[in-house]
Amino acid sequence: MVRTFLVLIMLAAACLSVAEPRRQPYLMPMPASVQQGSGQLALDTSFTVAGSADNPALQRALGLFLEDLRRKTGMTALSMKVTDSRSAIFVVKTDRPSRDVPELGEDESYRLEVSSSGAILTAATTLGAMRGLETFLQLAEATPRGFAVPAMTIQDKPRFPWRGLMIDVSRHFIPIAVLKRNLDGMAAVKLNVFHWHLSDDQGFRVESKRFPRLQGMGSDGLYYTQAEVRDLVRYAQERGIRVVPEFDMPGHSTAWYVGYPELASGPGPYAIERKWGVFVPTMDPTEEKTYKFLDRFIGEMAALFPDKYFHIGGDEVNGKQWDANPKIQEFMRRHGLRNNEALQGYFDSRVEKIVRKHGKIMLGWDEVLQPGLPKDVVVQSWRGQASLAEAARQGHRSLLSYGYYLDLMWPASRHYAVDPLGEGASGLEGEQQQAILGGEACLWSEYVSPEDIDSRIWPRAAAIAERLWSPADINDVNFMYTRLEHINNQLDGLGLTHNSSYVPMLQRMTGSGDVGPLRVLADVVEPVKDYDREDIAVTEETSLTPLNRLVDAARPESNTARRFAGMVDLVVAGTADSQTRQQLRSTLASWRDNLTELQPLAQESFLVKEAMPVSADLSNVAQAGLEALDCIEKHENPPQAWATAQAVIIAEAQKPKAQVLLAILPSVTKLIQGCSAGKDVGPVQ
Amino acid sequence: MVRTFLVLIMLAAACLSVAEPRRQPYLMPMPASVQQGSGQLALDTSFTVAGSADNPALQRALGLFLEDLRRKTGMTALSMKVTDSRSAIFVVKTDRPSRDVPELGEDESYRLEVSSSGAILTAATTLGAMRGLETFLQLAEATPRGFAVPAMTIQDKPRFPWRGLMIDVSRHFIPIAVLKRNLDGMAAVKLNVFHWHLSDDQGFRVESKRFPRLQGMGSDGLYYTQAEVRDLVRYAQERGIRVVPEFDMPGHSTAWYVGYPELASGPGPYAIERKWGVFVPTMDPTEEKTYKFLDRFIGEMAALFPDKYFHIGGDEVNGKQWDANPKIQEFMRRHGLRNNEALQGYFDSRVEKIVRKHGKIMLGWDEVLQPGLPKDVVVQSWRGQASLAEAARQGHRSLLSYGYYLDLMWPASRHYAVDPLGEGASGLEGEQQQAILGGEACLWSEYVSPEDIDSRIWPRAAAIAERLWSPADINDVNFMYTRLEHINNQLDGLGLTHNSSYVPMLQRMTGSGDVGPLRVLADVVEPVKDYDREDIAVTEETSLTPLNRLVDAARPESNTARRFAGMVDLVVAGTADSQTRQQLRSTLASWRDNLTELQPLAQESFLVKEAMPVSADLSNVAQAGLEALDCIEKHENPPQAWATAQAVIIAEAQKPKAQVLLAILPSVTKLIQGCSAGKDVGPVQ
Repeated sequence: MVRTFLVLIMLAAACLSVAEPRRQPYLMPMPASVQQGSGQLALDTSFTVAGSADNPALQRALGLFLEDLRRKTGMTALSMKVTDSRSAIFVVKTDRPSRDVPELGEDESYRLEVSSSGAILTAATTLGAMRGLETFLQLAEATPRGFAVPAMTIQDKPRFPWRGLMIDVSRHFIPIAVLKRNLDGMAAVKLNVFHWHLSDDQGFRVESKRFPRLQGMGSDGLYYTQAEVRDLVRYAQERGIRVVPEFDMPGHSTAWYVGYPELASGPGPYAIERKWGVFVPTMDPTEEKTYKFLDRFIGEMAALFPDKYFHIGGDEVNGKQWDANPKIQEFMRRHGLRNNEALQGYFDSRVEKIVRKHGKIMLGWDEVLQPGLPKDVVVQSWRGQASLAEAARQGHRSLLSYGYYLDLMWPASRHYAVDPLGEGASGLEGEQQQAILGGEACLWSEYVSPEDIDSRIWPRAAAIAERLWSPADINDVNFMYTRLEHINNQLDGLGLTHNSSYVPMLQRMTGSGDVGPLRVLADVVEPVKDYDREDIAVTEETSLTPLNRLVDAARPESNTARRFAGMVDLVVAGTADSQTRQQLRSTLASWRDNLTELQPLAQESFLVKEAMPVSADLSNVAQAGLEALDCIEKHENPPQAWATAQAVIIAEAQKPKAQVLLAILPSVTKLIQGCSAGKDVGPVQ
Repeated sequence: MVRTFLVLIMLAAACLSVAEPRRQPYLMPMPASVQQGSGQLALDTSFTVAGSADNPALQRALGLFLEDLRRKTGMTALSMKVTDSRSAIFVVKTDRPSRDVPELGEDESYRLEVSSSGAILTAATTLGAMRGLETFLQLAEATPRGFAVPAMTIQDKPRFPWRGLMIDVSRHFIPIAVLKRNLDGMAAVKLNVFHWHLSDDQGFRVESKRFPRLQGMGSDGLYYTQAEVRDLVRYAQERGIRVVPEFDMPGHSTAWYVGYPELASGPGPYAIERKWGVFVPTMDPTEEKTYKFLDRFIGEMAALFPDKYFHIGGDEVNGKQWDANPKIQEFMRRHGLRNNEALQGYFDSRVEKIVRKHGKIMLGWDEVLQPGLPKDVVVQSWRGQASLAEAARQGHRSLLSYGYYLDLMWPASRHYAVDPLGEGASGLEGEQQQAILGGEACLWSEYVSPEDIDSRIWPRAAAIAERLWSPADINDVNFMYTRLEHINNQLDGLGLTHNSSYVPMLQRMTGSGDVGPLRVLADVVEPVKDYDREDIAVTEETSLTPLNRLVDAARPESNTARRFAGMVDLVVAGTADSQTRQQLRSTLASWRDNLTELQPLAQESFLVKEAMPVSADLSNVAQAGLEALDCIEKHENPPQAWATAQAVIIAEAQKPKAQVLLAILPSVTKLIQGCSAGKDVGPVQ
């Protein structure tokens, strides 16, 4: 009875609301300025919002906003209405409507004032209002007194005007519905350019009515109709997102030649490429018929895609077909083109004229930066800030994608540390600094399916979005991760499957077996980084290879390992409390014992079996960690033999297996080092 | 080093494939006959399937089948093709194509033979082939040597020809996309009728072009256009599912009168009903203009919905408007209609003639069974097998829905035990037995949103599907649950959100707090049963009430509680091993301690706070369970005072709080009884 009484006391305590220090709001990207007020604005079923009735784009945006707000708070479709400005609780004011097609450099600033009696969002443009609505949505949360937004004043504007996400839909086709939910994710974190990589060696993904063999023979039937493209573009516009199409040329273009071999620099026939890499087929820059084709094709696409910018790729041209073609060699001699770079420069200039003729401004990857390139061409750098700065010095505007390749499986912190104005671009000033338009997160899709694409993009793209939106001095990594975990959960509500696809992918591996033990393993591994997946593949992967293995289910960045690292740091620093030490110990024990639990599943499934060497590593490493923990807690000085044995275990575990890495390895190594100072246990990863 | 060596040994053992006793395949519904063979058919990227090229419906079905198979195995879109019969690995043979519109009673039988070299599916109709394809999909699983289907021969056919799922889209509107994924779920478990409850007091959900004020004023703008209806019907057809529309009349029809008050039996004006229950507004059966309206309306809908059957509702007529209307009373006298039932009988007969005129066969709920009702009207019973049998004895065909109401939150086992030919219908023979067409799972949507609807239907509807498809003697409840857990995971792949919506709904409750402790609580509670939710509501819920509370997130049947019950049974029987006892103990301890972990979350969120009394009950009950476990293990005979104290705790916990129940209560009560035999601790729930 005493215990029951205690429980009641505790319960009563829970009912008292306790004054707490105000925490910073969990916004991502962080606004330029946040000033917290007191009180909160209630979000109940009677919440209303209003904006200029004569701004249809804003009215649509308010409708979408309410849908999101209802979903976020669990209100039914009958709650929360758009109303007129006199009676609305939340009033949205814009100086002028934005253009239907969002444009680079439009004013995206906004001011959001929330008090306990209402809220006002003020923006120069509809676009700015859209950004402010997303901020409001992120602030909405359960509180002791219902759903609410805390009182505050936010003044906000983007640091860079071009904040993109590129998705490669050629190497693996990604259906429109999947793209749409990713556009929702982009809008939530204020990314404003969807760069659609539509053609490559492995597939031509847009319907051309003028050249129907492009998609007819170059796509395996996996392409977007023009109606679907228009629908997607409109969907993006309604969320304030520009859509920039990319048709990669003169390289990365095998899929064009399946239907139109005459465009290539070597004799056909051609087949859709199934492998990954840089391939030989290249457009013939010496034939006028190439430019006639491109003129008609680009004209068609320029009408389909309303954005002012048009990306022609231009990366990784393999000169082999040019080298092998006497006619092309002769052309180069005749025109004084001394090497393939110069020939590509000639091609790019010709294409630029076509793009310009159709009213567009050209973009290309790094390699398009050649002497004579018209100054308004925008250069997208995958090579680094130095080439970005070089483009700026030569009078071009440019975008950074180096450091933002999501397919390289880097942790969010590493992307977050990359600044378009850092490193080689840090010396830029004035106009040259202004010429750095921003950057784009990129997802190349060699190992990406509709099932796992969201997990390859989210939540890490949100960290890049913050780098591109927020002031440069917003760079506290721990606070970033706190907010990233929060936004990670928020993005679920948009239908993104980065979280929800995880267990089903593991369940597929275990079949009817209990997914639990496999999840324990999957939680602490990450896919290998950079281009290691192809470098260490036992059999070459192609576009036919199933994406159903541990490496596909594993998340690019292990949250479990990150939290574990935090605990280890405390232990090694001697500042961990007993609860943390106990938790560390039980976690390590469960990892050690997981091998035994996985055994029966491995006997049932080849996909689990492939993961067993990783599980064995985990077991060994966890045991090493437990021994190190003992040693640290007892202040022992272990024999050299122990340290040597641990070094062997760590070295073995450092070898990637099944194309995944044990993400807890650096932390366990720290533990071992923590108890064997002065002994050689190898470097911390 | 010894340990590392051991790990390697264990790893090696895992790589040997061990001969195991063959288990029954995890199919749901279980086929009529399964004969297991030896070996397995590999499902790799080169897998092919073929069926008659001159059967377009079959070709479409094969395309959908391959999409599902690729998703299930994680293959890319370029793998696994439809090919021609000579070279295919899997050949599908049908005697004849089914009609475009599936019909009641079509042959759905099939024979599936799988060997290590190939598979053959033989069916009289395309519909039968569709059912067999779903069986094949359920068999596909990861094995030690890749994905495969085990060799076996299955001979299968349904026990009942009408196996339905009714969804009420009036009380809460459910978007088309949500319905489509539920049709996918239906197809997976061989349900073949989607009964679409399209109008009720709370909303009229279909566009009528002839009477546009029906949806224009009766739906809050939440309705399906005719194009959407056609699209959904086609989607269902492609999955072998009939679509039967229901327009409820003469009661449950307030939404009609908002736009057309002249149809009602009392003076208007009318407003869309926001509350739940049985309401006064009722159609006027005495006016010829009513039938003229219905003739035009039913004619329009008969053309929109191609199925032969047309549901007119007819349930729960509240006679108050009739009683209060002198003109109607006079009409009854004049026509010798002695009571409201007789008046409804008159109305139903008139409507039946209209339905028949438009080429359809009428369906109605129990109450339509009145003298003089034409014999081909099908009666759907929500009252029980006795009324089902009564309909059969009167020469009607009938359907059981009593016992299959999913919104009552019963466990799957309880639905599973309900047989259309059980109880009051068990004495039927011959033609009368044949007249029992099957049954329908029903979801009334008072507390159902697009977010939680899937969890209210799945996986429990699969147990009902098995009852209606499989032979009557398939009724091992434990085996059913084993397979139900399996199909529960499989259904994830179809995009159903019954699993994936759970954590986000809890996360909404905790905001930025850790969802873990709330999940521990949510895992062991269930929404209150039957109609208790409205009976014990503190404030009346309406169509505006948010569905964002613990009761909405909680699953209708707690798997955790079910597994816990299994462990408790072993302990009480004295047959639990030490691992089970240890697990039981640590589980109870974590429940006891969960209250402390939830406290800080409760201080942050009103939604968590509401759940704290439940958490307190859980803590108390878990402590009681731990004490009982001690007592059982030590073979103690506790004092009566202890038993009395536990009875108080249990009695308190039995009171529903926050509209949820502690699902572990019966098991803990068993534990307490197990250690206090002879002492009064109250009845096991």
